[in-house]
Amino acid sequence: MRPIITLTTDFGYRDPLSGIMKGVILGINPDAKIVDISHGIERYNIREAALTIGMSYNQFPSRTIHVVVTDPGVGSTRRPILVLTDDYYFIGPDNGVFSIIFNENERHEVIHITAEHYFLKERSKTFHGRDIFAPVAAWLSKGIDVRNFGETISDYAKIHIPEPSRPVKNAIEGEIIYIDHFGNAISNIRYSDMAELMDKKGLRIVTKGRQVDMKEYYCQAEDRGLYAIINSMNYLELFVYRGDASKEYDLKVGDSIGVIASEG
Amino acid sequence: MRPIITLTTDFGYRDPLSGIMKGVILGINPDAKIVDISHGIERYNIREAALTIGMSYNQFPSRTIHVVVTDPGVGSTRRPILVLTDDYYFIGPDNGVFSIIFNENERHEVIHITAEHYFLKERSKTFHGRDIFAPVAAWLSKGIDVRNFGETISDYAKIHIPEPSRPVKNAIEGEIIYIDHFGNAISNIRYSDMAELMDKKGLRIVTKGRQVDMKEYYCQAEDRGLYAIINSMNYLELFVYRGDASKEYDLKVGDSIGVIASEG
Amino acid sequence: MRPIITLTTDFGYRDPLSGIMKGVILGINPDAKIVDISHGIERYNIREAALTIGMSYNQFPSRTIHVVVTDPGVGSTRRPILVLTDDYYFIGPDNGVFSIIFNENERHEVIHITAEHYFLKERSKTFHGRDIFAPVAAWLSKGIDVRNFGETISDYAKIHIPEPSRPVKNAIEGEIIYIDHFGNAISNIRYSDMAELMDKKGLRIVTKGRQVDMKEYYCQAEDRGLYAIINSMNYLELFVYRGDASKEYDLKVGDSIGVIASEG
Repeated sequence: MRPIITLTTDFGYRDPLSGIMKGVILGINPDAKIVDISHGIERYNIREAALTIGMSYNQFPSRTIHVVVTDPGVGSTRRPILVLTDDYYFIGPDNGVFSIIFNENERHEVIHITAEHYFLKERSKTFHGRDIFAPVAAWLSKGIDVRNFGETISDYAKIHIPEPSRPVKNAIEGEIIYIDHFGNAISNIRYSDMAELMDKKGLRIVTKGRQVDMKEYYCQAEDRGLYAIINSMNYLELFVYRGDASKEYDLKVGDSIGVIASEG
Repeated sequence: MRPIITLTTDFGYRDPLSGIMKGVILGINPDAKIVDISHGIERYNIREAALTIGMSYNQFPSRTIHVVVTDPGVGSTRRPILVLTDDYYFIGPDNGVFSIIFNENERHEVIHITAEHYFLKERSKTFHGRDIFAPVAAWLSKGIDVRNFGETISDYAKIHIPEPSRPVKNAIEGEIIYIDHFGNAISNIRYSDMAELMDKKGLRIVTKGRQVDMKEYYCQAEDRGLYAIINSMNYLELFVYRGDASKEYDLKVGDSIGVIASEG
Repeated sequence: MRPIITLTTDFGYRDPLSGIMKGVILGINPDAKIVDISHGIERYNIREAALTIGMSYNQFPSRTIHVVVTDPGVGSTRRPILVLTDDYYFIGPDNGVFSIIFNENERHEVIHITAEHYFLKERSKTFHGRDIFAPVAAWLSKGIDVRNFGETISDYAKIHIPEPSRPVKNAIEGEIIYIDHFGNAISNIRYSDMAELMDKKGLRIVTKGRQVDMKEYYCQAEDRGLYAIINSMNYLELFVYRGDASKEYDLKVGDSIGVIASEG
């Protein structure tokens, strides 16, 4: 079976950086199958990179190698790391881009990549995607044992991904963590957080002083109002049918959203 | 030969949705060759999706599987369909995205996809690209017989794609149906519609009260004026050499365009 | 080994043009591995296409076939060409898009592609990416000898790529040639041009009447000021850490930049 390497970066679609990474990978392993997850991460936005790979990684076959490059600290003492979970490999900078992977996979191991003979010979201080992450991913995809890349570390970086809170028994308080291409405002409240409240009477979704009804699918909304839905990743999401909830209702990352049942 | 699966969506290039579809496909058929046609269809714009796949499908090898996801009705009773023509397979929602395929292929068959064992086990009501269309395409690419996916239907959806009219013998009336990345305004008038008039005297292209000369190739235009050309898809197109006809001459989808010969 | 074909165009990411080129290539050579370098070249900008392929080509394995389509002269007498260097093949219009390839590879040969039986049978005057460049790349990737495509020419087009000058012994005068996705302003001054001055006292980078300090890596900058760095392609670059140098300091392609040492 041909190994899969995915790429998630903030390189955009104009510069040749992601293409160059593919050239380096194919130079080492011509059989690698390279899949773009996104090169549209907001520039320097480590949290958005963490969310994007967090939404995507487990939709890929077991043993997929996920490379993430949103890396404002490139060239400094910031370490390159290889993360192992039961099913996947992750390669990128030690700056928190894998925080959701750590949260969701109790069993994980982090290796500080130090084996320079797997890097490109001439290395820059500004493009480790090309010089370190791409070649290490390619060598790993050829079957090099993970132990050969460096030593296990435990002091790796994690960023704060806000978790919903439960201020009272019948309420959940969360926040908007991602605005997608359709203007949908995705919260950090999971269906599993809400499930218990769903059976209770008078369930209400509240955001910015506005009460929002739940729908099961988008076109169940019969007007251009703001509605809530459980999305395909099992998160609570605000949407406007055939519209742009973020623009039309001024919703932004960090806005608070609540789920309240009137009766226990 | 490795089967080809193409993707045409309105997902944009920032969210990981198209990457996730690829992960699902490769999990089922690691040998699939996946080609992006476009993820830049205007959000919810079924007609633009229909035009995009209509411009592209027959440039691919025979047996290619074309997946199209512009799907505002996802999760409702809107059916998933598999379309068969002599040379290609098409998979997507039953909302008209395949209207041009139906128009251009007299022999075609539409199957309502109902065989849930080919879908992902856990299915959302908001992302059938991942849950239904990608896995069905992957299973089809592995050689599963089309009869296994469901029953033939005849009441499938078609959207109106405007056709040019012939109000008088020496004139054709059409409209602009697509503005491309270069600002070219592509009409629905085909070369074959015009061929008969081309030999006649005094052929004129008229749009918005303006008379436009024909050129054979773009740089034959010696100034920044508006000109007409038969484009690479054999449609009549308005352009500005090294410019942006849509912006510079305020051309929009739906604007009328006419072809008139002064003498029969 | 599977042959690699790269694509660099100004087609953007909405129209299906790059997808169509891939369909044509795979129809001729199903084993071709197609890699996108960029479809985000500014429309009609031959110099930007030349810089993009110039930054990328030698990061790919030997024998890679690089196809470049930024082609405002398509359909005219402008010739299609195949360029050979010791390690790579290049296919595209004879309009200067390969100027950096010519500069960097003393040994190179240019073939005027004339063998029409390798083109698509029906050809347009507006899309040679599909009709000529894609099929020729595909046939070349199948092992067709380069001599079969046409005759060697010597009067091929080159565009002016500005080179830095050395007005006095201790100074280099260059200019900004590319603004990247991060707003970094990349100059035409190479590290090799500067190396001799680097050891001298009082090295200063000057642009727009402003004196700029050198850093070794981006996050070495401790504020949002403008700094200079040797980038991953070994060019002198101006940047703002986690910012956008181009926007914040109004830097544009063509702006002058100087390197001055105060003492020999």
